[in-house]
This record gives sequence, structure tokens and C-alpha cells, in this order.
Amino acid sequence: MILSVKTKSRTELIDITSQVAEQVKQSGIGDGLCMLYVPHTTAAVTINESADPSVRVDIEMVLNQIVPWEANYKHLEGNSPAHVKASLVGASELLAIENGALVLGTWQGIFFCEFDGPRTRKIHARVMDARLR
Amino acid sequence: MILSVKTKSRTELIDITSQVAEQVKQSGIGDGLCMLYVPHTTAAVTINESADPSVRVDIEMVLNQIVPWEANYKHLEGNSPAHVKASLVGASELLAIENGALVLGTWQGIFFCEFDGPRTRKIHARVMDARLR
Amino acid sequence: MILSVKTKSRTELIDITSQVAEQVKQSGIGDGLCMLYVPHTTAAVTINESADPSVRVDIEMVLNQIVPWEANYKHLEGNSPAHVKASLVGASELLAIENGALVLGTWQGIFFCEFDGPRTRKIHARVMDARLR
Repeated sequence: MILSVKTKSRTELIDITSQVAEQVKQSGIGDGLCMLYVPHTTAAVTINESADPSVRVDIEMVLNQIVPWEANYKHLEGNSPAHVKASLVGASELLAIENGALVLGTWQGIFFCEFDGPRTRKIHARVMDARLR
Repeated sequence: MILSVKTKSRTELIDITSQVAEQVKQSGIGDGLCMLYVPHTTAAVTINESADPSVRVDIEMVLNQIVPWEANYKHLEGNSPAHVKASLVGASELLAIENGALVLGTWQGIFFCEFDGPRTRKIHARVMDARLR
Repeated sequence: MILSVKTKSRTELIDITSQVAEQVKQSGIGDGLCMLYVPHTTAAVTINESADPSVRVDIEMVLNQIVPWEANYKHLEGNSPAHVKASLVGASELLAIENGALVLGTWQGIFFCEFDGPRTRKIHARVMDARLR
């Protein structure tokens, strides 16, 4: 299953928890794994607090401080900071499915991380049956 | 299986290798996967050197330097740096199980990463049978 | 399956996509998972752009800026920055296999990340049959 995500800013964390949860539900899987994978090199996926939207704003801010917009970059497309952030945050997440639902902590949500937007992006959500102990 | 971890400081890496290894052993699985998952948004899990305890002190120090304690944070709970560190280090790790034991490199151990302690935390350790090649 | 990687510099990202793809092909698996795992504590694995070699040079540069070579490190071996980078980038990646091939985005490649070279390193590439939806 491939989800589509439309981003509106250069740097932006978008809460995709409900979209992923819906896909898991539709799959009919009772117990198993859900693998999220971003097929882009200037975007990522992470799990963090979804209750307060200001958390994701703070994550965006610090990532932009850690990875400078201007430096002696060799890559000529001008989006090297986005590539660096993609490797720091990572292209995938692995979640458990129990009793037909994603296993997330109380405050956790799933965020698509845009680092070179705005663009229309994809994220793969693959589920599999598995007996976990 | 859910492991409990009691942390004593605000920032602290705790070696949980032996607890995870014990759970893998008790599961009786010969070959398969072990998925570690942190259901919190201000904590993480990582794999690094367990032989010299000073390595984890250095990791804590650099993370605290990279992510400033004070900044123009919007999140009012005062723990935004912990949320950022959680996304940089990541909520999960995936390990192989071979011949009934976790596959770790010679110097590797598994560390629960507390970024907003002290607290009593959880980490999920899920194992599954799988034929790996 | 264990791949060998020979690194030539202290910090170096090496494109191992074709080696991993060859192992997946030789396994004969049609649909499943490929788990990449680095059994070292001063190296990592990441997915990023493989088309322009300057991207990996920029990633190396920013990682060296983020994690200082000199600081009040406690670990006496002098390679604490490499340990920190290993935890920031991560020891593993999980990829899907479809129709006998690795699923990667158009611009994505797999990079072994050396942070304390030059050395001869290993990376585990484990594949398993799995029906993904």
C-alpha cells in the first residue's frame, strides 16, 4: 500500500497516524508487523508526540539549526541540508500490529518528515502477518 | 514482552542487553527476529559500545550539545529537547536471533535512552520465528 | 549473508547498493524483507541519494561539523565522535523485496557509513520470505 502525502512547506512534519491506522484496519491483519518506508532521499519518517502540534514545530526548528542551510556544499541542487536530515531521521519505521490495531504509545503519532518541499510525496505502508511473542 | 526500565537522571543511556538477551532465551526461539520498541516520545533505543561505560557518557554529552536546552521552543512542557533527541536516535531497533541468541557485534550492547527522566519507562521486546538467509 | 567492506578514510560513505542487490537476487526470494545490520559501534548504514556522489560528501561534512572531533570526551580511545555518529545514523535498515528485487526509490542507494576508518568492515544482509500487503 502506498500513501500519498502533499506537503506545503520546505520543512514540515505531517501527522499521518490516522491514514496508516486505516490501512492497517483495512488489511484485516490481526497480529503482525507494519513497515513504513519513505522512497525519497530528502524526506523521512519518525514517531513522536502527536497531542501538541508545537512539538513538531520545535523538531523542525532544531533540525534546521543543526543542519545549516548554507555551507560549503558540493551538491549543486541546493538541497544538501535535506539529504543530511533524511539520514539523521531515517527512511523507515517498524511497528507492531496487535488485535487488528497499530501498537503506539499513548502520546505517539507517526510523522512524515518533509525536508525539501513543497512536493507530493509517497510513503510505503507494508503489513505482514506475524506471530509476535 | 514488555521490559521495565527505571531511570535516575534527566539524560541517561542504560545498558539493557542482558535483560533483552534473557527474554530472547526464555522465548525458546531458535532463529528469528527481535524488535525493540520504545512507546515513549522523550526516550529512544540505540546500539553502541557496552564495554567502556564512558562511551555512553560521551554520547549523552554530545546529544546535549547538539540539541540546546534553551531555545525559542513553542512546546510549553519544557521537554522539547527530549522530543528532538528521540527522533534523532529513534524509537526502534531490529536484531536477528540465531541459534537461540541475539546477534550482536563483539562490542555492541543495547541501550535504553532516557532524555526526560528520571522516570519508570517501558520498552517492548517482541520476538518472532523467521527463517533468515 | 555477510558482506565485506573495505574503507579508505576516517569518515566515508560507501555505496553498497549493487552488492546488496546481488545478494537478494542470489537468495531467489520473490517477496519478503531484507534486513541490513552493522555489527560495529563506530559505523552505520543509511539510505540516501546515489546518483550524485557529492551528496555523500556533504553528509560526511555535516556529520563532522555536528559532532566535534575534540571535546571533553571521557572515552580514552579517541573515537567517541564515531560512536556518537553511529547512534545518530543507526545500525540497521529494513527494506522490502518485491518480484525478486529490492524496493528502493528512484534516487535511493544503500550506504555503509565508516566513522572510524580506514578498516575492513562487515555488514549483515539477511533476507526472509514474507507476504507483504
